[in-house]
Amino acid sequence: METLTLHEDARSGNCYKIRLTAALLGLPLERKSYDIMAGETRTPDFLANVNGNGRIPVLQVGNRRLPESNAACWYLAEGSALISADPWDRADMLRWMFWEQYNHEPNIATLRFWLAIVGEGNLTELQRAQLPAKRAAGEDALALMDAHLAAREWFVGGQTSLADIALYAYTHVSEEGGFRLRDYAHVRTWLDRVAALPGFIPMD
Amino acid sequence: METLTLHEDARSGNCYKIRLTAALLGLPLERKSYDIMAGETRTPDFLANVNGNGRIPVLQVGNRRLPESNAACWYLAEGSALISADPWDRADMLRWMFWEQYNHEPNIATLRFWLAIVGEGNLTELQRAQLPAKRAAGEDALALMDAHLAAREWFVGGQTSLADIALYAYTHVSEEGGFRLRDYAHVRTWLDRVAALPGFIPMD
Repeated sequence: METLTLHEDARSGNCYKIRLTAALLGLPLERKSYDIMAGETRTPDFLANVNGNGRIPVLQVGNRRLPESNAACWYLAEGSALISADPWDRADMLRWMFWEQYNHEPNIATLRFWLAIVGEGNLTELQRAQLPAKRAAGEDALALMDAHLAAREWFVGGQTSLADIALYAYTHVSEEGGFRLRDYAHVRTWLDRVAALPGFIPMD
Repeated sequence: METLTLHEDARSGNCYKIRLTAALLGLPLERKSYDIMAGETRTPDFLANVNGNGRIPVLQVGNRRLPESNAACWYLAEGSALISADPWDRADMLRWMFWEQYNHEPNIATLRFWLAIVGEGNLTELQRAQLPAKRAAGEDALALMDAHLAAREWFVGGQTSLADIALYAYTHVSEEGGFRLRDYAHVRTWLDRVAALPGFIPMD
């Protein structure tokens, strides 16, 4: 395989997903760090040469660049057991990955970013006004996960898949955004299950 | 293939994506309608039997149910030319589909929903406060698409893929949300290209 380089900020769960996928698969990954808070992903050089969308993570494969965390995980995991060979399970895995980006990340990851990284005192008025709605939507997301995991060990098809990795990334640090994982017993058991996988690496 | 039923609201671009994918592939699709505005996707019956997340679309395949529009499109298109056989192109297609759900839909589709369906006079104070940021983010999304399409006919790999279908759905009705497509010449040409595909069906 060509050299794999991850353009990342180590505090980002979206970046961690890709490192965790690579670790579980035993793939070596070079890392190039950017400080989101210092605007390092919005420079003309970054926009022209790494990602015109001004965001990390970007997975670089040789000279090609792939933005979007879940797409990068997919690229690394193609042909591995982290993507089921069953068409229904594969689509259902993507269902949870799209759900993660639409219903989970914008609430759970954003509250962590705002409260633990930006700092509540530094939020804009508009950000502050959005806190209650994002809190409620984040709780709904955790409750949906908890209900789903009540009768299952993994999100899809009885085996570890990218759906688990994508959802682990920001769920396991959700308390930094003020969520209480003790309210979600099935989620906590599943987090322990992910952390016990052979090859697992922690976020930091 | 088992009977395919789409649980939908005909005004939703996310639902239209699935109908358009099925049409391009010549797959028959039964339709079951819900009125989002009347709360028909939040009833106890819907939450228990269709989608615990309270959202449409849901693609029903026999007795199994698949939420998330882009996952449903993937399920229908597996093995077809709408998903490239090349691993890079497949991941790059997913990249645009994840980008659509994270950067495009929450801005461009939400403004259309708020302004053309809910009505500006019925918005909450918090929704109204978010209009400028969503307007700017939606313009950024259209500009990124326009730049990408300046040198390409299709989003990925020189052929029509699910990335085009996913992005077509809300882009072609973005003027209902107050965006001006005349500012994006490459996007307009691409919209015409999609609408000329054999088997294409319009949204209504």
